[in-house]
Amino acid sequence: MNATIVMPVDAPALKIEGTKAYGAEVVTYDRYNESRETIGGAIAAERNAELIRPFEDVRVIAGQGTIGLEIASQCAELDATPDHVISCCGGGGLIAGTSLAVTSQMPGAKVWAAEPEGFDDTIKSLESGEILSVDPANRSICDAVVTPSPGEITFSINRNTLSGGFAVSDDLVLKVMATAFKHLKVVVEPGGAVALAAAMDSRLPAGTGCAVAVASGGNVDPEMFARALAAGPLF
Amino acid sequence: MNATIVMPVDAPALKIEGTKAYGAEVVTYDRYNESRETIGGAIAAERNAELIRPFEDVRVIAGQGTIGLEIASQCAELDATPDHVISCCGGGGLIAGTSLAVTSQMPGAKVWAAEPEGFDDTIKSLESGEILSVDPANRSICDAVVTPSPGEITFSINRNTLSGGFAVSDDLVLKVMATAFKHLKVVVEPGGAVALAAAMDSRLPAGTGCAVAVASGGNVDPEMFARALAAGPLF
Repeated sequence: MNATIVMPVDAPALKIEGTKAYGAEVVTYDRYNESRETIGGAIAAERNAELIRPFEDVRVIAGQGTIGLEIASQCAELDATPDHVISCCGGGGLIAGTSLAVTSQMPGAKVWAAEPEGFDDTIKSLESGEILSVDPANRSICDAVVTPSPGEITFSINRNTLSGGFAVSDDLVLKVMATAFKHLKVVVEPGGAVALAAAMDSRLPAGTGCAVAVASGGNVDPEMFARALAAGPLF
Repeated sequence: MNATIVMPVDAPALKIEGTKAYGAEVVTYDRYNESRETIGGAIAAERNAELIRPFEDVRVIAGQGTIGLEIASQCAELDATPDHVISCCGGGGLIAGTSLAVTSQMPGAKVWAAEPEGFDDTIKSLESGEILSVDPANRSICDAVVTPSPGEITFSINRNTLSGGFAVSDDLVLKVMATAFKHLKVVVEPGGAVALAAAMDSRLPAGTGCAVAVASGGNVDPEMFARALAAGPLF
């Protein structure tokens, strides 16, 4: 079906180009001075289209939850019993779905959020027990997960399923992208590397026997990937 | 068990470091002026060790043949019937094992060798029906597959299982590495990208419905990968 995607104008060029190549129309906006909700709502009204929010939608959360089902089935196949699962976290949709699936399929595993420093809104909200926002002046290279505050639907799930979280720096993220290049041979975008970064930086509790980190998303422009290669791997 | 690996001194630094990190001792040699067979034979004699050649060994060929079994089982899972399979080819071990498995499991598929330009010794040998060598002065960035002539064991298999081959330039290989970065999100080394290069450069016969390319090996130094990113993707 026809799709119109509202994307930040500073999204990776490769991501905008890829979205168009799949046949969608792309409408860009300034993430710091415009509201995507307003823009998306207006387009939906004008075209009589269904508005699908990036995380405040139970259908999106359920779809992303299949990652948790995959984790559970792959762990079963490997006869692995993880103590911890870490997932990237922006608005909290991916981790809401993933944590619901993980906690139901592998009740012994704790689930943790990884966020970029300066965009640790879910971590702060979990600590305080209410939805908090970060300073809108903050910046990070982790473009896919720089949401200023958790969603109401996502936080209502995550406050029950998550054990806490870890904020990681852009510098660490670049090094972890280089580490994934060197050892895993995969291309991970900055926002998709935050959970791997927390895991590789030994943020998990001492005595962890087995952990799973979600590395999701490879929309990274060559220039940013070259920055990661120049930063060098952790090991 | 203890392992000593004889590697060209100009192998990717990351490959030498990785081999050591797995616990092996690495002995380097000059691939243009020294014989690895002589060096390996001397080490094996001195240490009473078993010499395992990179491709002239039926055990190595059988092990690499599991790639062909994986292709057959993954195609069956996807309900795909490939007309063609292309594999990287150096000394011919990988493609000998792969082609034996593919032609026995999927008799309708033709198997093709991909080699770097200047190191198309298997292609030339297939065309002439006898083992030929390339000019020893030739050079290519595809370090893992720059063998000057096919092996006797591998050629005795490949002359029966292969339909022919395609020689690809270093420039094309770099662009294909950038294409794999952009669309597949995988890190492929130059020698591992030659089959993908032949496929993406439309070398297969017109009317091909379904083809499989083997992209094998991610031992590429950041400098070479940066060259690939700078070369840019094919699409």
